[in-house]
Parts: sequence; structure tokens; C-alpha cells
Amino acid sequence: MLKRVSFRNVSIKDNFFSPRILCNSKVTINDCLDKCESTGRIENFVNAAKHLKGEEHGEYTGLMFNDSDVYKVIEGAAYSLHTYPDEKLEKRVDDIIEKIAAAQWDDGYINTYFTVKSPDGRWTDMNFHEMYCIGHMIEAAIAYFESTGKRTLLDVSIRAADYIYENIYLKNVHWIPGHQEIELALIKLYFLTKDEKYHKLALYLVEQRGKGYPFLDVINKCIDGMGGRKYNQDDKPAEELSEISGHAVRAMYYYSAITELAALDNNSDFEATMDRVYSSMLRNMYITGGIGQSNKNEGFTEDYDLPNKSYCETCAAVGVVFWASRMNRLKGLSKYMDIAETAMFNGSISGVSLSGDKFFYENPLTSDGTHHRQPWYECSCCPTQISRFIPSIGDYVYATDDDNTVYVNMYMQSDAEFECAGQTVKLSQKTNYPYSADVKITLKNTLDKAVSLKLRIPGWCKAFAVKLNEKAVSDIKSDCGYVVIDNISNENDEIELNMEMPVKIMHADERVQNDKGKVAVMRGPIVYCMEEVDNKNISEYTLSSDCVFTETEIEQLKGIPALKEVHSGAVFVPYFAWDNREEGKMDVWINYDEKKDGWLYR
Amino acid sequence: MLKRVSFRNVSIKDNFFSPRILCNSKVTINDCLDKCESTGRIENFVNAAKHLKGEEHGEYTGLMFNDSDVYKVIEGAAYSLHTYPDEKLEKRVDDIIEKIAAAQWDDGYINTYFTVKSPDGRWTDMNFHEMYCIGHMIEAAIAYFESTGKRTLLDVSIRAADYIYENIYLKNVHWIPGHQEIELALIKLYFLTKDEKYHKLALYLVEQRGKGYPFLDVINKCIDGMGGRKYNQDDKPAEELSEISGHAVRAMYYYSAITELAALDNNSDFEATMDRVYSSMLRNMYITGGIGQSNKNEGFTEDYDLPNKSYCETCAAVGVVFWASRMNRLKGLSKYMDIAETAMFNGSISGVSLSGDKFFYENPLTSDGTHHRQPWYECSCCPTQISRFIPSIGDYVYATDDDNTVYVNMYMQSDAEFECAGQTVKLSQKTNYPYSADVKITLKNTLDKAVSLKLRIPGWCKAFAVKLNEKAVSDIKSDCGYVVIDNISNENDEIELNMEMPVKIMHADERVQNDKGKVAVMRGPIVYCMEEVDNKNISEYTLSSDCVFTETEIEQLKGIPALKEVHSGAVFVPYFAWDNREEGKMDVWINYDEKKDGWLYR
Repeated sequence: MLKRVSFRNVSIKDNFFSPRILCNSKVTINDCLDKCESTGRIENFVNAAKHLKGEEHGEYTGLMFNDSDVYKVIEGAAYSLHTYPDEKLEKRVDDIIEKIAAAQWDDGYINTYFTVKSPDGRWTDMNFHEMYCIGHMIEAAIAYFESTGKRTLLDVSIRAADYIYENIYLKNVHWIPGHQEIELALIKLYFLTKDEKYHKLALYLVEQRGKGYPFLDVINKCIDGMGGRKYNQDDKPAEELSEISGHAVRAMYYYSAITELAALDNNSDFEATMDRVYSSMLRNMYITGGIGQSNKNEGFTEDYDLPNKSYCETCAAVGVVFWASRMNRLKGLSKYMDIAETAMFNGSISGVSLSGDKFFYENPLTSDGTHHRQPWYECSCCPTQISRFIPSIGDYVYATDDDNTVYVNMYMQSDAEFECAGQTVKLSQKTNYPYSADVKITLKNTLDKAVSLKLRIPGWCKAFAVKLNEKAVSDIKSDCGYVVIDNISNENDEIELNMEMPVKIMHADERVQNDKGKVAVMRGPIVYCMEEVDNKNISEYTLSSDCVFTETEIEQLKGIPALKEVHSGAVFVPYFAWDNREEGKMDVWINYDEKKDGWLYR
Repeated sequence: MLKRVSFRNVSIKDNFFSPRILCNSKVTINDCLDKCESTGRIENFVNAAKHLKGEEHGEYTGLMFNDSDVYKVIEGAAYSLHTYPDEKLEKRVDDIIEKIAAAQWDDGYINTYFTVKSPDGRWTDMNFHEMYCIGHMIEAAIAYFESTGKRTLLDVSIRAADYIYENIYLKNVHWIPGHQEIELALIKLYFLTKDEKYHKLALYLVEQRGKGYPFLDVINKCIDGMGGRKYNQDDKPAEELSEISGHAVRAMYYYSAITELAALDNNSDFEATMDRVYSSMLRNMYITGGIGQSNKNEGFTEDYDLPNKSYCETCAAVGVVFWASRMNRLKGLSKYMDIAETAMFNGSISGVSLSGDKFFYENPLTSDGTHHRQPWYECSCCPTQISRFIPSIGDYVYATDDDNTVYVNMYMQSDAEFECAGQTVKLSQKTNYPYSADVKITLKNTLDKAVSLKLRIPGWCKAFAVKLNEKAVSDIKSDCGYVVIDNISNENDEIELNMEMPVKIMHADERVQNDKGKVAVMRGPIVYCMEEVDNKNISEYTLSSDCVFTETEIEQLKGIPALKEVHSGAVFVPYFAWDNREEGKMDVWINYDEKKDGWLYR
């Protein structure tokens, strides 16, 4: 069982995420707050507060779960304030929090949709996202408290959580949130407060599912084609799950909570069920780490059914990072971080433009030229998801365990200082990852008790070499997909990891009909695609098996290396960077000509 | 059409071939000469000379074509003397040449088997290798003349060639050599002497084949199971060939000659036929570059029939280098050098131990532990083939054309000085190839007229970068599998080529039944294998798709990097280096477990 090392302990100084974190801080956060204001999302809180005071007020505007966007961008702002303190932003958030606090009922309830529109409708429809919104509020509150020490939103959140605990858990009322989220938020709240209530409530909400309680017809009624127990993840108890189902984002949050509970409670049934479901997810995952094939219900279809006109919501790919990294902490296996990394570098960050102010909701692997990032969406979960994901990316770099081991899960140039088995460990990482896979890790303080470093060897890496204090380590010790370097205790102890990171022509499993005769290009964790702006007639282009690539620069993509196929001149750009220039067609999976009368081996 | 740059113009100073060239000079050459003496091969010449003088003499000993071994080791000694002058060796060869010269008939005929054993049997059996032996004598003579300026053996050879020209060509006698070789030797003699006779004779010997001349029953009689027109490469005229057939070494020498003639005579029919046959060869080639599946007849069986208990004679793999490099010069395509390189680094040099004094005749891809290098063979073509191949390896580094282009066909640390379109070009190469794929090439003199450098991008390389005078070349010009760097004329102009050379898990074409469910490990041009000395139960070992390798050192293999699979600890050594330690089983193709419920892409 590994322990999280927070992004707060990791100061990122790389060429990849640092500019994105800065851009998120300067552009995305403010932009999302502006949108929350201009679309009435903040005003909904003001109207709800007025309603509570019996004052005259305007109508509720927008979708029923619009509160959550405000919470998510506050969470993002909170993370951002840790790295880039910003009085003006903090003041702006403080003001919004005042408005939120004023919209809380005396009993602890808070949801502007029901308050303004239908106060008597509270808790009548499990699919109306009341718990989902409160969950996001709890996460925002914890983040803001941890960054600023201010507890207004945290107190609101604790009151709301206590209210649910008393009225649902203590009264043993059957309820399942239409959209999971609150479960993992409650576990965070438990970690912060050490109050077992929240742990119990989280477990209770998980255990309510799939136990044969009377079926909620109302879920069917409200959203066309999104009904059914399986879609609503209510068909089986958590411990009996064997395949991924339903709405992709809800699934990721649900499984993240189950995985946390498996770790917290040493629940081997939960662990076993997560193993099964995780395997099932891999049979439904795009090469970008995207999941959720269907645009009909934002959910899954069938194993190996992976049409490239995929839905692949940004939020779901971020959810993959949430779940996979928790699986890593539960099981200590590096392979989970491979998937987290894939989703991180491809299907997640593709969700935001390089300028930081345009967003994808859907992340298809092909486009006829009509799919573009938008400044905002009516349902704007994805922009706000990005706003909180990017500034907390440092969460995935390190983990520890009680056995004096530091897990290096992600390679990212940074300085870190964190606790490991009771002592402070300071590490610096020098690397140009993901554009190079040479990493130097230096211990920056002397340790009383030596630690072991476990370096993740990514699944894409077929060969590497390790040096300890400039001497090659020939007797490599390996465990769970990590290389283990024992006995690190001296200031300036230096570990060098040099990984081969070739350009690879990727073949899909033959059961994926949609990619037959096609290949994708990857280098390390990065998936590449072809855009029409660089290449004519991409749909007619065929990559030959004798292809060979060289790096090339594209001015408008400032510093992001592209690849050029040398014989054809075809240009491939990282998938995350597409649709940042002229509009046009895009393809990840490229027609492939495997010369069959040539050399017999590949 | 490219021009050969001789090894005489390329001074190799690398860590890979230099020690082998030295070892060949100090050990292999002398050892082969010793064996030629102790097995009566030299004595056969003495006896033949006595016979000619009517003196009493001993019996002929050994196989009918044993003269050829003496010629081949003289050829090797000649190449070696160029690089490592050695008075003692030169004296030893001079003495042998005296004995050879004394064994030539007045009419120019020379063959100790027929002279001693059956003077009246001359030219009665096309399969008794008279022309084969004379061919090897011609090659040795040219080499010795070029290295020492001494013409005794050259004069003997010219007399022998003239004798055949007069008695076969001028008299229009039908004859095909049972074992081709003399054709390409005659072309070399033509290049040296510029005498069209030898060119005409070479073409004549090629044209005699497959034209429906009365079939030679005698070929069938003499060697069991090796008969038939197709096996004897007499079923079709050269210009109508479409598939590889017959004895593998004869095939390589035959096609090498046809390819030379295609270039010399601008013969597009020959070129087209070589294209077809070459493709056919690739369908019969092992991953080591080895050819000739069958131990029944040292020949080919069927496309894709590649049993790992393969025959793969060392001579045939060397023959692949001969033919493929000639195809490269004929057609200017880099892909031919990929095959030459594969055969060179694997199936050829596997034929000699690291100590230089033990040889493989057969180079199978699997061994039950009973296959070992021997100090000599009754039919010892392979040791003597190695003795002449290793010291001339520099032949494959560069080529030129009339358009001021220098082709860099092989990466090998060296200093070179050669003519290109009328001017002297001096190039130095710095690289640790094949253990690294970073190459620096520097022009060492100022040129009046700028040249273009064409750098071969090997087929195994999927990505590379080029720098010219320390600046990245982003607008890569590519042609025929080469990267083209124009306008090189200044002393110290420096081209840096950095190629990705990852460890690769190689899959055989699905039509190769013998390798189903198995993979091979390669890195750059080097094929790896598992030996029992490093690994228990190699036949039960299964490489998993999540394998990852690191370099490891094996003391007894001094400096040759091995690979260790990190999770299992399994050790893989270069195929060329196997059977240099304790005896045991060996496998190139390893059982493979492609985890099917994991990640969908590879």
C-alpha cells in the first residue's frame, strides 16, 4: 500500500507541464471563473441565498448540476494559488465562497437548482446530481483550505457532509448518487479530518449500489437512453463487478472510491473486483487513454469496439488518471502508472488548447475537420476538470511506503521534499521528459535511515540502463515493474536512468476491427496524429513499413517537437497538440502498408 | 550505378571489427595455413607438380575441391597483409605460391585433383569444381598482387583464364561450372586488367545456363540427392529466373556475377531477374541473414519454410553480403545494405569463434547443446571463407557515383581516403556502432567541388536526427533509403547522425510456421539468442510482452554487451557470440506470451 505524495511537495520545473501550469493559472482559471459569472453559475448562488432569506430573486439558469463547475474551478484555483500565489485571484474566490456559503440551508443542504427552482423536490431524484455537486464542493473546500488556511468553504462542506451522514447513513435511507463523485470526496474529507463518519458514509454510498433495492424508475425517465441498472452502475454490488459499464466519468469516480476503500479497509473483495474491472477497462480503452466510446450515453459499448469517431470525454481520461493512480497505490504495481501516464499525456491534456482558453469535451481519434475546441460548453465539466487537473499534476510524481521506499512514478523535472517513513526526503529530478527519457535523480539531503528508490520502467520502454553515482548498475534489481535502487542515504547520491524511447509503429489488437490495416505512431508516452494543416489528403495517406522519422519543428507549436516521415515528408504532431492551428482533418490511426514480399520480420 | 570503395581505402579503427581483423591476421590465417599443410592440401600441389615433371609422387588427399581452400586463405592473407604487413606470413605465402605455380600445366590448366588422380578426366564432369577452384585462384591472385605487387599467382591465373577463354569461349564449348565462382572472379580480373576477354567469358558462362543444352547426367550421379536442373541452376536462363533455387552458396556467387554483369552491360533483363530472385531470397532468409534451410543439399526448400534447426552455411551468409552489396551498387538503394548488414553481423561472423580458431560450418538458430565450432572441417570452405571475408570488411563501408556522391553504407569507426568523381575525399568516422548508433563523419580535406553525402538509414531504424556542423538539419532530404547532405566541401565539415537503436521484440511473418508464438530479440543489426550457460531450461523459458532489458557484462565475452531481461533475469547474448563458453542449448526464437487481456496496443 503506497502513500500519496501531494503536488504541494513537488515543485515542477520542467518544459512540459510548467508552462501548462502557468497558463492554467494565468488564463484557464480566470477564464473559467469569467464564464461561471457570465453564464449565471455564480448568480445561481446569489439567487439561492436570496430565496433562503425570502428575498425576491431571479430564475435558476443552466443545467441542474452547474454548481459543480463553480466548485471545480475553485478547486483548480486553490491548487494554482499554492504554486502561484495571486491576491487578486484569491480575493475573487473568497467572494464567490461567500456567495456559496450564503446559499447553504440551515440544515446543511446546498444546491442552487433545487433551492431556486424546486425546494420541495430535494432528494426526490437520484439522478439530479445533488450529491455530485456536494462532492465537488468538498474537494474544492479541502483544496482551498490546504492552500490558504481559510475554512469558510470547508465548514460549509462539513455541514453538508454531516447533513447527509445524519439523514442518509444514520437513518439508513437508500440512496445512490446518479453521478458518483461524493464517495471519493468524502474519503478525502476523512483523510483531512480523521473523522470516521465520512469514511463510513463513503462506504455506505458504495454499498447501496446493486443490492436489489427497488429500482429507480425516475432515472430512466429523466435522461433518454441512459437508463437501466447496468448503465447506472446499480446492477451488481461493488464486490461482484467484473466489467466496466455505464457512464464513463461516473465509472472512474466510482472505481476510484472503491479502490480507496479497498486500501483503507484492507478489503480484498473490493481489490479483486477492481482487478477484474480494470482489465475490462483496458479492453475498452483507446491508445490515447481515452474511454467511453459512445456519444449516445457518454458510456461504454462492448469490448474491442473502438470506433475512431470516439466520444472520449476529457473528464473520463482525467478520471482514468484518478483511478489508475489509486490502483497503483493500492497494489504497488508500476503498470497502472503506464495507463495513468498514457491518459495524462494524450486524452486528458488534448482537452485544452495550448493557449489555455479553448476546450474539447470530446476527444475523437479522427476528425473530418469539423471538430474544434470551444471556449465553453453548456455542460462545461471538461474545462473545469482541466482547470483542477493541470495544477495538481505533481500528485502523480512520487509515492512512498512504510518500508522506507520512495516510488518514482512519473519523470518530471522538479524539486521535491516529502516525508517517507518518518523522515524528510529531498529529491531533485533533472530530465526533459517526455521528449527525452534520460533522468537524473539526486538526493538533496543526508538521511538517517537509507531509503530505497523504485524507478518506474514504463511499459513502452523495452530497454534502459541505470547508474548510481556515475557507476553503471549491472546487477539490476526489479520489482513490480520498478527498478529498485537500495541504500540511498547520502546527500548528492545520484541515480541516472537512461531509457530507450524510440518512435514506435503501434498495432492494435486484431480484435479491434476499427483499426485493421492501420497503425498509430508513438514515442514514449506520446501518441502522434496527422493533421491536414501539415499534410494533404491524410485519409488517403499510407504509412509504409519502411517509414523512418526525424524530429521537426513547427513554429506555431512552440517547442513541441513534431515528427516528419522522411520518405513521404508526412508530418505527425502529438495528439495533445492537434487543433491548435488551421482547422482541418485529423487522424491517429493511419493506413499502413506492410510490405509482404520484403523482409520477413518486424 | 555505384562504384566500390575498396577496404584498401578504409582504415578501420573500431571496437567491433578491428579486433576481429587483428585476430584473423594473427590467428585465423596462420591456423588455416597450418591446416592446409597438415591435411595435405599444400602437398597436393607438390604432388601435382611432380606428376607434371614425371616424377614419383604421393597420392592426392582430400576432397576434389581442396585447392580452393588454399586459394581462399591466400586471398585472406593478402587482404591481411595490406592492413598488417607481416614478412613471415608473406614469405610463407610466397612459398605456397611457388608450389601452386609449379602445379600448372603448360596449357594453363591447374587442378591438383585431376592432375594427380585422373589427368584424362579433365573437363569430363562439370560438377568436379575445376572452374570453381580456378575462380578462387583468380581472386587470391588479384588480392595478392594488389597487396604485394607480386604477380606470380596473377600470371598463373591469367594463363588459366586465357586457357579457358580459348578452349571454352572461343571454341563455343558448352560448359557450366557445377559450383559457380569463376564468373565473379573473371569480372574482378576484367576490372584489374581491363581485358574484355574475361568479361566476355564471365557472361558466356552465365549464358550457358538454362538454355536447354543436353542435360548433364553426370551431375546427378556424383552427388546423391543433389541433382536436377533446378538444383543445378540450369533450369532457366538467367534472364528468366524468378525464384531462388539450388545450392545456397552457388546461388549467391551466381547472382553476384549476374548483378555485376547487369551493371557492366546495362542489362535491364538481368536487373529485372535479380529483383525477382532477391525478393524470393527474402522469403527464404532467417533473421540472422542466414540462407539455405536444408542440410540435405545445402540448398533451399520452400518460401517461408524456415526450421530453426537450419543449415545456414557460413559461406552462404557471406555470399549474401557479396550479392546484396552488389545489388546496392547496381540499384543505389540502401535496403540491400540492410540485408548485407544483417548477414554480416549475425550469420556470417557467427562462423568464427572469438578466439579466431574455431569455426561453424552450419549456423542453426537452435541447438540442443551438441552443435559446436570445430577447428577445421573435411570440407573446410567456411573457415577459409571467414579468413578472406573479415579482412576485407572495409569493402562495404563506402561507395561513390559519378555525380559527386559518397554513399555511407556502413557505420564503422575508420579513416578513409578515396576517389570520388575525380577528386580525393578524406573522411573520418567516429562511432561505437553497432553498440551505439551515434555517428560523426568529418571531411578531412578541402574539396574543389562539393560532394553530397548519402547516409544509409538502416531498416531497423525508425527515427534519427542529423546535424551539420553542430546545427540540426530539420529539412531532411531523403533518397532511396539514404539521407542526403549536400554541399560538403570544407575541411572539418562534420555530419552527426543520431539514430534510435532500441531493443526490439521481433515477430516473424505469420507464414513462417516454425516461429509461431515465438519472438526474437534484436538491437540495431544484432540478433540475440539465449544460451544454457546463462539460463536454465531455455526451451521452457517464456518471454513476456512486458519484458524490459538492460545491458549486462559477461566477462568471458570481453566487451561484447549482453542483455538481461530485468524481471526474469534471463540473459541474451549476440547470436554471433554464442558457443564461446561452456557448451549448452541455444535458441534465437523464444516462446512469447503476449498478454491478451492487457493493453490493446503494441
